[in-house]
Amino acid sequence: PLSWSEIEKLNEDPRIHGLLLRLCRESYTSKILNAVKPEKDVNGITDFNLARLVHGDICECVVPPTARAVIKLLEKQACTTLDGKKILLLGVQGPLEVSLQCLLQRKGVMTMSLSWNMKQLQTMVNISSSLWPIVYPFMYTYLFFSFVFFCSDIEISRGQAPKPIHILAKEIGLLTEEIEIYGQTKAKVRLSLLERLKDQPDGKYVLVAGITPTPLGEGKSTVTIGLVQALTAHLKINSFACLRQPSQGPTFGVKGGAAGGGYSQVIPMEEFNLHLTGDIHAITAANNLLAAAIDARTLHENTQSDKALYNRLVPLVHGERKFSAIQLARMKRLGITKMDPKTLTADEINKFVRLDIDTSTITWQRVVDTNDRFLRKITIGQTQFDIAVASEIMAILALTSSLSDMKERLGKIVIANNTKGQPVTAEDLGVTGALAVLMKDAIKPTLMQTLEGTPVFVHAGPFANIAHGNSSVLADKLALKLVGKEGFVVTEAGFGADIGMEKFFNIKCRASGLIPNVVVLVATVRALKMHGGGPNVIAGVPLKKEYTEENLKLVSDGCSNLLKQIQITQQFGVPVVLALNVFRTDSPAEINLVCEIAKQSGAFDAVPCRHWSEGGRGTMELAEAVRKAANQQNNFRYLYDLELPIVEKIRIIAQKIYGAQDIELSPAAQSQINCYTQQGFGNLPICMAKTHLSLSHMPEKKGVPTGFVLPISDVRASIGAGFIYPLVGTMTTMPGLPTRPCFYDIDLDPDTEQVKGLF
Amino acid sequence: PLSWSEIEKLNEDPRIHGLLLRLCRESYTSKILNAVKPEKDVNGITDFNLARLVHGDICECVVPPTARAVIKLLEKQACTTLDGKKILLLGVQGPLEVSLQCLLQRKGVMTMSLSWNMKQLQTMVNISSSLWPIVYPFMYTYLFFSFVFFCSDIEISRGQAPKPIHILAKEIGLLTEEIEIYGQTKAKVRLSLLERLKDQPDGKYVLVAGITPTPLGEGKSTVTIGLVQALTAHLKINSFACLRQPSQGPTFGVKGGAAGGGYSQVIPMEEFNLHLTGDIHAITAANNLLAAAIDARTLHENTQSDKALYNRLVPLVHGERKFSAIQLARMKRLGITKMDPKTLTADEINKFVRLDIDTSTITWQRVVDTNDRFLRKITIGQTQFDIAVASEIMAILALTSSLSDMKERLGKIVIANNTKGQPVTAEDLGVTGALAVLMKDAIKPTLMQTLEGTPVFVHAGPFANIAHGNSSVLADKLALKLVGKEGFVVTEAGFGADIGMEKFFNIKCRASGLIPNVVVLVATVRALKMHGGGPNVIAGVPLKKEYTEENLKLVSDGCSNLLKQIQITQQFGVPVVLALNVFRTDSPAEINLVCEIAKQSGAFDAVPCRHWSEGGRGTMELAEAVRKAANQQNNFRYLYDLELPIVEKIRIIAQKIYGAQDIELSPAAQSQINCYTQQGFGNLPICMAKTHLSLSHMPEKKGVPTGFVLPISDVRASIGAGFIYPLVGTMTTMPGLPTRPCFYDIDLDPDTEQVKGLF
Repeated sequence: PLSWSEIEKLNEDPRIHGLLLRLCRESYTSKILNAVKPEKDVNGITDFNLARLVHGDICECVVPPTARAVIKLLEKQACTTLDGKKILLLGVQGPLEVSLQCLLQRKGVMTMSLSWNMKQLQTMVNISSSLWPIVYPFMYTYLFFSFVFFCSDIEISRGQAPKPIHILAKEIGLLTEEIEIYGQTKAKVRLSLLERLKDQPDGKYVLVAGITPTPLGEGKSTVTIGLVQALTAHLKINSFACLRQPSQGPTFGVKGGAAGGGYSQVIPMEEFNLHLTGDIHAITAANNLLAAAIDARTLHENTQSDKALYNRLVPLVHGERKFSAIQLARMKRLGITKMDPKTLTADEINKFVRLDIDTSTITWQRVVDTNDRFLRKITIGQTQFDIAVASEIMAILALTSSLSDMKERLGKIVIANNTKGQPVTAEDLGVTGALAVLMKDAIKPTLMQTLEGTPVFVHAGPFANIAHGNSSVLADKLALKLVGKEGFVVTEAGFGADIGMEKFFNIKCRASGLIPNVVVLVATVRALKMHGGGPNVIAGVPLKKEYTEENLKLVSDGCSNLLKQIQITQQFGVPVVLALNVFRTDSPAEINLVCEIAKQSGAFDAVPCRHWSEGGRGTMELAEAVRKAANQQNNFRYLYDLELPIVEKIRIIAQKIYGAQDIELSPAAQSQINCYTQQGFGNLPICMAKTHLSLSHMPEKKGVPTGFVLPISDVRASIGAGFIYPLVGTMTTMPGLPTRPCFYDIDLDPDTEQVKGLF
Repeated sequence: PLSWSEIEKLNEDPRIHGLLLRLCRESYTSKILNAVKPEKDVNGITDFNLARLVHGDICECVVPPTARAVIKLLEKQACTTLDGKKILLLGVQGPLEVSLQCLLQRKGVMTMSLSWNMKQLQTMVNISSSLWPIVYPFMYTYLFFSFVFFCSDIEISRGQAPKPIHILAKEIGLLTEEIEIYGQTKAKVRLSLLERLKDQPDGKYVLVAGITPTPLGEGKSTVTIGLVQALTAHLKINSFACLRQPSQGPTFGVKGGAAGGGYSQVIPMEEFNLHLTGDIHAITAANNLLAAAIDARTLHENTQSDKALYNRLVPLVHGERKFSAIQLARMKRLGITKMDPKTLTADEINKFVRLDIDTSTITWQRVVDTNDRFLRKITIGQTQFDIAVASEIMAILALTSSLSDMKERLGKIVIANNTKGQPVTAEDLGVTGALAVLMKDAIKPTLMQTLEGTPVFVHAGPFANIAHGNSSVLADKLALKLVGKEGFVVTEAGFGADIGMEKFFNIKCRASGLIPNVVVLVATVRALKMHGGGPNVIAGVPLKKEYTEENLKLVSDGCSNLLKQIQITQQFGVPVVLALNVFRTDSPAEINLVCEIAKQSGAFDAVPCRHWSEGGRGTMELAEAVRKAANQQNNFRYLYDLELPIVEKIRIIAQKIYGAQDIELSPAAQSQINCYTQQGFGNLPICMAKTHLSLSHMPEKKGVPTGFVLPISDVRASIGAGFIYPLVGTMTTMPGLPTRPCFYDIDLDPDTEQVKGLF
């Protein structure tokens, strides 16, 4: 905290060269320089001691418009105190504010940001709001024809020139040294931001979940992006979308991106969907290094004597033997306190050199970020290949809170049991540090932007079945600081609310300690009709007429699923707003019916959304509803107590969330539960691996199935990530390529370097 | 071309806001602004029409020192013409020059850069040159103790704060829009630079090769870096090092980086050795997508009728069937000219849908960038795993000249034969465009810097046995433009001159059309003693006393290998300079002996180098020698005519380079040669896959083996990369991890984010 007398002192300090030197380059225009140049200095203010601006003893005439506003605010508001700290309420926006903030925070003055002064990117559909009601009906038709038939997602994406990412970073208050630029449109954000803004109150935390979807998906990502576009670009409320990074495998297999779509997407979408900033590649490298370490160790233990192993593990270097830090840590776990390698007994050496991995229990698999069906089948020892995003390291990335926490989690990964049935970890293999080194950049979230120029974090994309399917804790935390107290962070949970949201609350919120303020539940008339008894919806096959013509009966019947998902949300004590993702073929009567039922079912509000065709403007009603809901009282609670036995926790989820009558464990599942409990992992949260196409385990059972017994075929654990995952049926962790993979349409124009045919 | 009257017009144009707006931000200091501010404007020059500077009609008093120099040069030299173009010889250096260059080149004025004004990074060993002779003897001892025992390579690397990469980019004349920043220390450089500087003459092209090495390597990378440090940081001659990107696999297995070492290395070395800018990850993704496409296609062809395949490959979308571009290209190859999918006959459909891959001939393997011994053994269909850098796509990246050329090469990759013995390509699988999309960023070389702040390109790192082992053609080409006519580009060839250099000339130079000016041949007293009959040199085992004590006999005998390698170089008509990489234990008599023998053997010059302990200062003598050699007459010629039969080309290499009596083909090799010749690939250059530890195929035969017959066990082809590779013995394309992989020492400090224990 800096007192006024300290500011006085600061101004007298000849070593302080002043604020001007900290100005962002963008603000360093001749206009500002003219305003503060020596000639016009009245009170001895030059461009080199502008620091005096801070206590406002300069003649108004030399102050440029932006700076003048700061002074006024300083005079009026800088005396506010909170917990004994001076608080500077900054009213100027943009680079100048950032500079002031930077200077002051380094000096220990706490600053509070007002709303961002952000350049909105105009899209074709953004027409004057006053004209909107008039052109709307025509516009809608026009738009439909113009972009449905003529504009693919990638064409819309390419039609918009993104802001240079360093500009966006400045607009939202990031300092130059807090970002690492990757090309023109992506930047990693350093975790040091959390320390700088640690006293800043968090913004509001909004989760976007969904009802039980059709195989086509119901638009959670587009709602997420539409909502932040509405908040930031239209209502001028700071907001951030936090999204998962998609796997590159399916990008070349079956169409369907995770960048949103239409006029609610992240741009440039090809950057979003391809390598991004290399996080998944880093995960692949770390995952496969661990796999290689396991097999190499097993080979060497099988082929060498204790003495040979010891001589190689603790080699003579410059005539001396020394344990490495990671080996000393292992010694400690083994209860050997000796520091000198020469003094170990034969028995101690045996304990030290042999991990005795029981190869039949190895659970660690290799990964590639390619849809490669053939890698499912191969057998290398006891393992096989998964797609990269199925790696436990991805789940760790998504749940970690810091570099040291990540390192700890990586070390805790259990890769097998030893022959005595005890867990063998990555730490035992001596590979923790190397894994952390490989992941050191991946831990920083990537900043991108929406089609309307508002900020987005893309970070981590764990599977939603064998893992928890949520983007990273760190991205959410950084965003909550950046938006400020009145701002909003909108994050998405995978699959329907029964899976993604339940895991969001019980796994991710437990890991982060964050409390959500609002749940947005996404539904479509299409999915509701399916739950009401409509015909099968199959990807790649045209929709039946039930879905393209008005059918209030099907909608009304299908709302059972909606009601159930709202009830699930209410069990967690968080207000829920229904976002009905409107399609061209939905009738006004259908839309009204859904919204009415939702409100009667306990939703705080229910609104139709047209973000896909209209961008942020189409989600303004939703934004207003979310804003109101965020001011509701929040009674957030977890569903179960971690100290309950594993079986009990599974039963609670099955009964209270899925509506099962009971659960039924296979002998294998029971034996694994016993094993994990005995190994001390019984108090971890549960991550159910269940189909997302039904509330039950049977994908064909739509609506609200009842009376079923949920079969648990097996139970596995991701100890580093920190959860137990029961398998309800089999889960594919390696997708395949179809007969005509979408790479047939993907091409690169060698002259313009533009990507064609991606979605 | 811009005439003076056009410049006049430019100045009158009210839309031209002037040069000031193009100034790099670093040059935008108050000093410059003061100098050009409106008040002091004499001729109506304001900061908004500084464009007038270009024809120099302003009062000298308002011009800051740097700008004044420009004006003077403009007045004196701007009238030079070349091919009808105005040429501006720029004398000012740094950001201002870059800005001027940028403005003028956009207007079509050709500019020629003088030498870079580069900030040299000071290292501990850089002491005043006048004091050097005095402190040298002590210094050397001091240094040895200080860094050999106390400073590892990573400590030296970390002891130096690198310049922000955008500063370095500006120093060497890159425009802001030509670089893509990746964090603080790496930037990709866009290929558009080649177009902008297409009229700029190339610099001198220097290849660093070596004698037959010990398993420890003899220091080609450190010589490469030491040489550019000497040229640029000490002699103020523009120079660029072009290096290969190392595989990440060995980084965690056995120590030994490719970033150079000691006081001649690329910094930060951990960035260099880890993910870099993701190029190898992109190659892995592209390689494995192709592998998945092969197996998926085979599966679908095996399980579907012609009709089913056709319906899926050319699906009904919105009631219409259409061929994609890549399918139309395939139709053309099949001789089917129809455009309408409905009109194909059953026979044509059969030809179109069936690639009929003969799975026993599939040569395309999956890759990971991990040393994973176990992946050598597995069988997935007929394939296995290689390390990522062994992928043909890596060789393509290294040899390509543009985005369109890369796409063409990717499409030409032959992955198997069909059942009729015809080649099946990536293009046939429809995956060319997708591969190009995955590789679109990898094609841009990555800019980094040496320990002394001089520029380095890191780009591509193909295997030196089954591929050609050289860094990329594109990096060399970009660097040759950037250094300017008087500058130097130093690039490195893998293994000894008999392998790496031979491939550099016959494969890489053929692909690029570039002609090398000088070869630097690196030797060590250690390696020469080994060739002279010294005991075995084994990695990880202390050197025998023959290597640490003076032994002129061994050195003199071993120079046979040096002589042979010099003769090999001379066959290509390029002057050769011997760089003796001096170790602490080498005696002055040994050093003199080697240099004398080298000069007698036809080397242009031979000099001792102490770059490892002294940085650029230790290689100044080499730099002077290279400079002189570059002015020698150049009689560069290829070793063989491409039109010769494959067998003849192999025989020429075996006899003229290795000194073999003849070659002996296995039946498999002969049959493959027949097959490739019949398929029309007979006129490709040859890439020998031979051990680097001997001139012969027998690693234990040191010196200059004679009278041997070189056995060719098999012959393979990388058609996309464009070479045939005969196998001389077996080549491991997947390394393994040792008992104590170096990851035991690798760690990350979670607070400082520093990497520990890497080398």
